[in-house]
Amino acid sequence: MSYRAPVPEMLFTLRHVAGLDSVDPDDAEAILSEAGRIAAGVIAPLNRVGDRHGTPFAEGRVTTPPGWREAYRTFTEGGWNGLSAEADHGGQGLPKLIEAACTEMWNGANLAFGLCPLLTQGGIEALAAHGSDDLKARYLEKLVSGEWPATMNLTEPQAGSDLALLRTRAEPAGNGTYRITGSKIYITYGEHDLADNIVHLVLARLPDAPAGTRGISLFLVPKVLPDGTRNDLRCSGIEHKLGIHASPTCSMAFGDDGGATGWLIGQENKGLACMFTMMNAARLNVGLQGVGVAEAATQRALAYAQERRQGKAIGAAEATSPIVAHPDVQRMLLTMKAYTAAARAICYLTAAALDASKGPEGQPALDRASLLTPVAKAFATDLANEVTSLGVQVHGGMGFVEETGAAQLMRDARILGIYEGTNGIQAIDLTARKLPLNGGATARSQIAWMRRAAEGLLKAGDPAFGHMAARLRDGIGSLDRATSHQLAALRSNRPEAALAGATPYLRLFGLTLGGACLARSALAANAALKAGETDPAQAARIALARFYAENLLTAAGGLEQTVVAGGAFTDDATLALAV
Amino acid sequence: MSYRAPVPEMLFTLRHVAGLDSVDPDDAEAILSEAGRIAAGVIAPLNRVGDRHGTPFAEGRVTTPPGWREAYRTFTEGGWNGLSAEADHGGQGLPKLIEAACTEMWNGANLAFGLCPLLTQGGIEALAAHGSDDLKARYLEKLVSGEWPATMNLTEPQAGSDLALLRTRAEPAGNGTYRITGSKIYITYGEHDLADNIVHLVLARLPDAPAGTRGISLFLVPKVLPDGTRNDLRCSGIEHKLGIHASPTCSMAFGDDGGATGWLIGQENKGLACMFTMMNAARLNVGLQGVGVAEAATQRALAYAQERRQGKAIGAAEATSPIVAHPDVQRMLLTMKAYTAAARAICYLTAAALDASKGPEGQPALDRASLLTPVAKAFATDLANEVTSLGVQVHGGMGFVEETGAAQLMRDARILGIYEGTNGIQAIDLTARKLPLNGGATARSQIAWMRRAAEGLLKAGDPAFGHMAARLRDGIGSLDRATSHQLAALRSNRPEAALAGATPYLRLFGLTLGGACLARSALAANAALKAGETDPAQAARIALARFYAENLLTAAGGLEQTVVAGGAFTDDATLALAV
Repeated sequence: MSYRAPVPEMLFTLRHVAGLDSVDPDDAEAILSEAGRIAAGVIAPLNRVGDRHGTPFAEGRVTTPPGWREAYRTFTEGGWNGLSAEADHGGQGLPKLIEAACTEMWNGANLAFGLCPLLTQGGIEALAAHGSDDLKARYLEKLVSGEWPATMNLTEPQAGSDLALLRTRAEPAGNGTYRITGSKIYITYGEHDLADNIVHLVLARLPDAPAGTRGISLFLVPKVLPDGTRNDLRCSGIEHKLGIHASPTCSMAFGDDGGATGWLIGQENKGLACMFTMMNAARLNVGLQGVGVAEAATQRALAYAQERRQGKAIGAAEATSPIVAHPDVQRMLLTMKAYTAAARAICYLTAAALDASKGPEGQPALDRASLLTPVAKAFATDLANEVTSLGVQVHGGMGFVEETGAAQLMRDARILGIYEGTNGIQAIDLTARKLPLNGGATARSQIAWMRRAAEGLLKAGDPAFGHMAARLRDGIGSLDRATSHQLAALRSNRPEAALAGATPYLRLFGLTLGGACLARSALAANAALKAGETDPAQAARIALARFYAENLLTAAGGLEQTVVAGGAFTDDATLALAV
Repeated sequence: MSYRAPVPEMLFTLRHVAGLDSVDPDDAEAILSEAGRIAAGVIAPLNRVGDRHGTPFAEGRVTTPPGWREAYRTFTEGGWNGLSAEADHGGQGLPKLIEAACTEMWNGANLAFGLCPLLTQGGIEALAAHGSDDLKARYLEKLVSGEWPATMNLTEPQAGSDLALLRTRAEPAGNGTYRITGSKIYITYGEHDLADNIVHLVLARLPDAPAGTRGISLFLVPKVLPDGTRNDLRCSGIEHKLGIHASPTCSMAFGDDGGATGWLIGQENKGLACMFTMMNAARLNVGLQGVGVAEAATQRALAYAQERRQGKAIGAAEATSPIVAHPDVQRMLLTMKAYTAAARAICYLTAAALDASKGPEGQPALDRASLLTPVAKAFATDLANEVTSLGVQVHGGMGFVEETGAAQLMRDARILGIYEGTNGIQAIDLTARKLPLNGGATARSQIAWMRRAAEGLLKAGDPAFGHMAARLRDGIGSLDRATSHQLAALRSNRPEAALAGATPYLRLFGLTLGGACLARSALAANAALKAGETDPAQAARIALARFYAENLLTAAGGLEQTVVAGGAFTDDATLALAV
């Protein structure tokens, strides 16, 4: 069973939930269908060999698995690397929304493969937004085409979530370049054989820089210098990881021989802002990785459940039924499918806000994207862990055997909640930085958007919706009150009460927003059926939205209680953890 | 950081939650302390080598990792294999409760190692309860000492959860023995070099047996026959698995040369009853495996969080704080610790019911054990998956690197919800077989036990309890109503509505029962403090119980809604899953 891109479902979500209207429907379908063919036909077949082969490291060189170089060439030559980059830089100039669907596909097919273009995209965003004209002229087209992939060099052994502790140094060389020295760890695709050059974006400190995060600058440090010589940097080792074995996670040594040559991106000591440009793009894309791997796990589990026969279902004629006929297995599969659909909708909604921020709506849309990004990243990747684990469970004993493939998806997915800012960091970002945007108005406006979905359900009043409207209304009420609590706690003299509830608050936000998205999907499907459409996918969308509301969104009330009254632990956590 | 047996916490739970009173406190402490030394000093150090080395298979032979033979000898020679077996058979005659704490330790130290005695214990139970005197005389002492470990041969490729589909055949040989032919898969420790003989318990069909599960018989089929010759059985391969790499998972071929010699255990065609004897013991023990691995993950995460410094906590004096000072990390650690404590208490409670069933209480206690067993198995192992995954998360990027060890615990734990009856099967068992026991009276009586804990909290009325009483009362109310719903649905003409809610119902049962157990723990701790005790562990117990009630037990209301109103999906699951 190989990955198949769910193009009709993607198109429906793009149009009816995220509101794609800038691309002709036929064009969108043509692009997604072609991307689906590449994902399923070229990238997915390499997923298993990538897991088994890994990326052997010897003498500073990293070898990608058999077939990866050819697949990467097909991918870049098809122009898929720079979908949303500006045409001026060799990109396709397509909306982020279209790109989001494609990113989901590459990663649904093969998470380890999808990481390479994902990081390059972050590099493109940072360079396009903050790079000098000269630097852009030299590097941007190569990044957009994918001929030279980019990396993000942030983490050091002592500096993970806390970048204030960075030690890598950059000294002005006098000729407009800088000499970079230091060690970085966990550098994804820091070294490999997919391309002739690799463009490292490196956070480092200037000699006179202030301490902390206000003294960090961003540098472009290529593996091969413009004159064709090797730069003074090398991969010093790779990690042995739980998953994404085919994505080399490198330790990088800069400046063994006096300093790697780098060029400043943006202003001195303003590296953090540049980094957030690439980080925000990367965070949404990691959310989309979660959607992709959840979709892959769901397809695989469903196919197995339709084939494997065990036990006789109630009312079945035959002695043994396919396990998909058993209610408990249905619950697992519907949970997988509903969570995947909700995570997809939230990620697409975030991409749509980014697109809208470049149009007449401007800043409010950008604020909306800022609000939604941590939700898209953390909620989608938490769900990816749950969905891929359910995927193992549906397979029973077979799921624990590596050859089946379900376990790989679970292992691969486990990194998503950790990298590009752990999900705890996302939760703190949502509560402490994003909720206060415009005095809370950005969040309130998103809640109002959810409320309109609930009102739409009530107005339509179709019996097929079951308790969907009531559950969504309950969820929104919980989210609304929890939002007030978080905002008030931030303003109080006990801000730790807000931080204590940050993770359940993000879960509540994502869960409710997902419910509103699926309600919009159900409303559009209902309208289509009323208009005489007969596609069984429409009734399926309504059934799935109802399942989500009646079985998953039910967690909202408890999450509200936890956010509002659960934070007492900060007083005696030390006590409870000391023993 | 190695595993350390939490002996004081275990003793407290044994005494104040599960109600151990048949063993002198000093004796209990002495036994548990010595077991803790073996677990930490002998078994835990082999966990990592076991994961890396695995169990190479060649020419029908399985080699255990370096050091495992010696450790197994130390373990069996110390008499740890037969703790609860009767003294008549060479056992120690100790209560199940003491054995439960020790089982938790072996598995907290090393899940793959702990599996070998776990399966032997199932064999002991089945043979002691159903074997002929002759068979017992020949095999029971060897099993009890651990000199010959036992296996459970149930699964076949087409027969996993559905044993009705079994095909392995047993033909009477005329001399009181049977000739067994067939293939089994997923046989844990089916072949290895820890012992000179292995006692396989094999489910098979007699020639004239009725179809389905009423035609299954249980046979004892030793690797080495009483005359010293090899029996006609062999290991034909081992699986490449996600975790527990050091536990060989074997495919077994019986009867290549005409039939392996076996002896009937119990009556012909009554094998399923015998199997349930060993299965029930094994199910509780798998729950205890979950507790053990959750405890190990918690210890490891806590140690890391106390050492790793990132970010400045609110109000901290230094520039960077240990991450244990951050509220979001505290939430993860407290969740791990609270879930582990709840799962432990439920498993010990189940063991106590088994002990009580052999005393004056008799059948009602056995019914209680029957009710609690699926909860102990599934709730504890679901939590083990969640806790070990949180353990990875607390480590950040380090958690994804295999050398850290956190990822191994997550991989190892993943099997626990699958084997010995998937957790879906446990949920169906609880709803369809255990709730109806005595017309629901067994379940109601357990709920009344929980209610007394809530009343105790109200009566004590200590401010340190926070909202504990209210949340527990809410949870019990939800469980009570959901129980009524499940019982009514079973009796209705739509029993699938009960099965549809089986998994969230089991979760609600475990979650609420866990809350009641921790409430009892908090009450005992509170009484100790009131009596002048100054052990900081007592205040920690109260804080942990409060955290559980205010942050985790809050999920109860949503689970009730899901059980009661979420089952509509059985009408259109096919619809939603068809597209």
